[in-house]
Amino acid sequence: MVVNGTTAPQRSAAGYSEVQASRLRVSLPLPEVLKNSFKVVDGPPSSSAGNSDEIAKLFPNLFGQPSAVLVPSDTSAAASDQTLKIGVVLSGGQAPGGHNVIAGLFDYLEERTKGSTLYGFRGGPAGIMNRKYVFLTPDFVHPYRNQGGFDMICSGRDKIETPEQFKKAEETVQKLDLDGLVVIGGDDSNTNACLLAENFREKKIQTRVIGCPKTIDGDLKCKEVPTSFGFDTACKIYAEMIGNVMVDARSTGKYYHFVRLMGRSASHITLECSLQTHPNITIIGEEIQQLISELNEILAHDVVDEGGMWKSKLSSQCLQLFEFLPQAIQEQLLLERDPHGNVQVAKIETEKMLIEMVEAELESRRKEGLYKNEFRGQSHFLGYEGRCGLPSNFDANYCYALGYAAGALLHSGKTGLISSVGNLSAPVEKWTVGGTALTSLMDVERRHGKFKPVIKKAMVELEGAPFKKFASMREEWALKNHYFSPGPLQFEGPTSNVTNHTLMLELRSYA
Amino acid sequence: MVVNGTTAPQRSAAGYSEVQASRLRVSLPLPEVLKNSFKVVDGPPSSSAGNSDEIAKLFPNLFGQPSAVLVPSDTSAAASDQTLKIGVVLSGGQAPGGHNVIAGLFDYLEERTKGSTLYGFRGGPAGIMNRKYVFLTPDFVHPYRNQGGFDMICSGRDKIETPEQFKKAEETVQKLDLDGLVVIGGDDSNTNACLLAENFREKKIQTRVIGCPKTIDGDLKCKEVPTSFGFDTACKIYAEMIGNVMVDARSTGKYYHFVRLMGRSASHITLECSLQTHPNITIIGEEIQQLISELNEILAHDVVDEGGMWKSKLSSQCLQLFEFLPQAIQEQLLLERDPHGNVQVAKIETEKMLIEMVEAELESRRKEGLYKNEFRGQSHFLGYEGRCGLPSNFDANYCYALGYAAGALLHSGKTGLISSVGNLSAPVEKWTVGGTALTSLMDVERRHGKFKPVIKKAMVELEGAPFKKFASMREEWALKNHYFSPGPLQFEGPTSNVTNHTLMLELRSYA
Repeated sequence: MVVNGTTAPQRSAAGYSEVQASRLRVSLPLPEVLKNSFKVVDGPPSSSAGNSDEIAKLFPNLFGQPSAVLVPSDTSAAASDQTLKIGVVLSGGQAPGGHNVIAGLFDYLEERTKGSTLYGFRGGPAGIMNRKYVFLTPDFVHPYRNQGGFDMICSGRDKIETPEQFKKAEETVQKLDLDGLVVIGGDDSNTNACLLAENFREKKIQTRVIGCPKTIDGDLKCKEVPTSFGFDTACKIYAEMIGNVMVDARSTGKYYHFVRLMGRSASHITLECSLQTHPNITIIGEEIQQLISELNEILAHDVVDEGGMWKSKLSSQCLQLFEFLPQAIQEQLLLERDPHGNVQVAKIETEKMLIEMVEAELESRRKEGLYKNEFRGQSHFLGYEGRCGLPSNFDANYCYALGYAAGALLHSGKTGLISSVGNLSAPVEKWTVGGTALTSLMDVERRHGKFKPVIKKAMVELEGAPFKKFASMREEWALKNHYFSPGPLQFEGPTSNVTNHTLMLELRSYA
Repeated sequence: MVVNGTTAPQRSAAGYSEVQASRLRVSLPLPEVLKNSFKVVDGPPSSSAGNSDEIAKLFPNLFGQPSAVLVPSDTSAAASDQTLKIGVVLSGGQAPGGHNVIAGLFDYLEERTKGSTLYGFRGGPAGIMNRKYVFLTPDFVHPYRNQGGFDMICSGRDKIETPEQFKKAEETVQKLDLDGLVVIGGDDSNTNACLLAENFREKKIQTRVIGCPKTIDGDLKCKEVPTSFGFDTACKIYAEMIGNVMVDARSTGKYYHFVRLMGRSASHITLECSLQTHPNITIIGEEIQQLISELNEILAHDVVDEGGMWKSKLSSQCLQLFEFLPQAIQEQLLLERDPHGNVQVAKIETEKMLIEMVEAELESRRKEGLYKNEFRGQSHFLGYEGRCGLPSNFDANYCYALGYAAGALLHSGKTGLISSVGNLSAPVEKWTVGGTALTSLMDVERRHGKFKPVIKKAMVELEGAPFKKFASMREEWALKNHYFSPGPLQFEGPTSNVTNHTLMLELRSYA
């Protein structure tokens, strides 16, 4: 089969499968506070995630601004007869639920600022710079409700960085007379959103900017923004496939299955899928990284004695991990260093490499008469299948609230905030809604001798609740087959409202 | 992640995901005729699918026996106080629903022949020969109801073929004093089941043998046995993934996705997934095979002129297919022959090979200035993910009825039949139930100078309704992106009762 979607025509519900069509008919619940009149209450002045002096210099207009919370109110803070001109853009890789953010924003404008205009910038930030957009109308938006993908307006990976690019963005928002812009993206895109907000404020351009947290990788999160959308759905799709492979393995015992999952530096997807399925071995990059840095210290200063006395220099967690690894990997970690003295991590990353290493190790044991069985590895890569699925009920609801909240924040005159929906372990009605100062999430990195603002990627915390839960179970999972098979994502029935372990464990630890 | 299931411990519902547990609680509907008293009515004498003289010689005891239909009756034909000793075995590759066949058989025995014994032979036919079995009790069977996989008793690919192997099987059924044996398997396994039935009958061994149609490939079917179980679920799982990749492609337009699907010679899975998702190009092996044989004829006897006059020798269907193929593949079909003059099909089978061929073709066009765009291929193989999923509602119900019917047939003294459940487009209550003479499905093949009985694999019929439907749509699918995204398999709600296109189209054409 061959598939390519270059032309991306406007969707029509007539071309929908039964499940897609049934999702289209579902109307979404809103948090109670968004159903009635509300006002926006500012919190205390904010700081930054690090280097507040540098962040203050980079964002002189926005630094220190409070986060905002929506609370019920008899009279609405925002003028009800006001119409707005708002732009929305999708930035970066796809994540299930993006269409619902736009639908939520659209519905806010329809319901609270009748007569407003919503521009959908096409193809990501380049659409802003090149003034490529579509008018989002009820008919245009409708077929995308609760549907996966980003094809309503498509996405792109361009950034608005250089002075010329900022100039182009300014021209667009001024020509279109935009009151606001919603940027749906990951850490980089939200940093970019904040720079745009700062720039518009500085130049006295009326356009306000609100971000929304998107990424299946799950690495854009903090207490105020408990999760990025798409993570829940993507993990459920991957976990369905992993669970199926586990049942297969359990039935035949023929193969050892090695599964690699999509994701960049952060391993939240792998950790979550592990919590959902209980594989025999799970490799979490962040843990390997810590082991590698401790090993580097030891290799640089100590002698690796055959008796293993050197191991006492490892922290107890790293020692436990080291002992847990197959000998072939232990050896590679100890022996191979690149010219800078670093472990060549790329070499031990892939599922196929691991299979080959295990084969080689077992072959050498066979020659020594220590191994007599047969080892057959089967590799799997789960990637594109998870980015564009129909959003889970959680992602559908969460995105809709994020988008609706973004509308409310813009309508209230806010800028430089990221839409924030909280209390996510409660029913949707009780979710909290507000906006978090983007500068409060920032730190700086030094690049080319200059400080650059960055929203720090949330990596898997080895002291965090999800990892600790995993670490407390993995030995049992390794020795006994406690496979869990989550099955296909359900939209109806009691199992359709289960969210993910990572979110629930983290919410509990915040509480 | 690494997963292996060699030890396959007995399952416990305590280790179940929410969806698995919810499936466990579902009790299954039975066809009306199985809910009350019934009798078995024999049809007319049967023949074979081909070479009836040879089949009659190979099955002197069973050839010509009638198929059976269960009809309501005030008095049951089978003695209600009789207890039975029955064995059951899973044979060959896994298919979603196998556990429900066993559960259906088990429940028949519990409800209609209280005090009976059900032996589960472990690890396929080898379990029969080596007398490896477990007693299937209510507690043992329970956790497997509506669950994927074959791990309740596991499967195997051994065959009972040689006189020694037949001897071992005889010893087992006699030692255990079996009244019957249910063989759950594909075409080969059901052929084997019939040979066992013939052998036991010939030797006056009381053990009767009933087959059940299993294979995700969907190539064991006929009018009386409209589908093999597992096909429905596997196709839905693959189609979910393909649909997701399509939405991804539609959103980014970055890659051309090439998807290869599990399956042996028959292409029912690929055809069904195509009907469910509408990819731009679908390659159906059976069609390619016909084109290849016509091309072989032409290449052997005619000149392939540059003007293309030779094409008039092709049948209109093959001409249409040929014109539809990319030029690079056209050329390979015309030029490359192995020493026997055959197209080297293996070379054009894989998704990666196709990507490379397209790359090479486009590169040569680029050099001629005929192509300026960028082509990026992304390959996918969907296999193990589909064999062990939780069975769809259709497969769960169908398998339960197949197993229950197998119990009824054995109880009624039948042997050499394959459990047959029909009228599948109606609600479960109206499904018909019976058994089809296995010899009536058989033909012979000559191997090593001897006639061997075979149930002919049902290949995709180029004149059949499913292929015709596909052929009538594919040109539009090729040019326009009419992607269909079926979404995840649902167990509740209105979309949970949708079956597959292939079955529905074939049932309609039988009607």
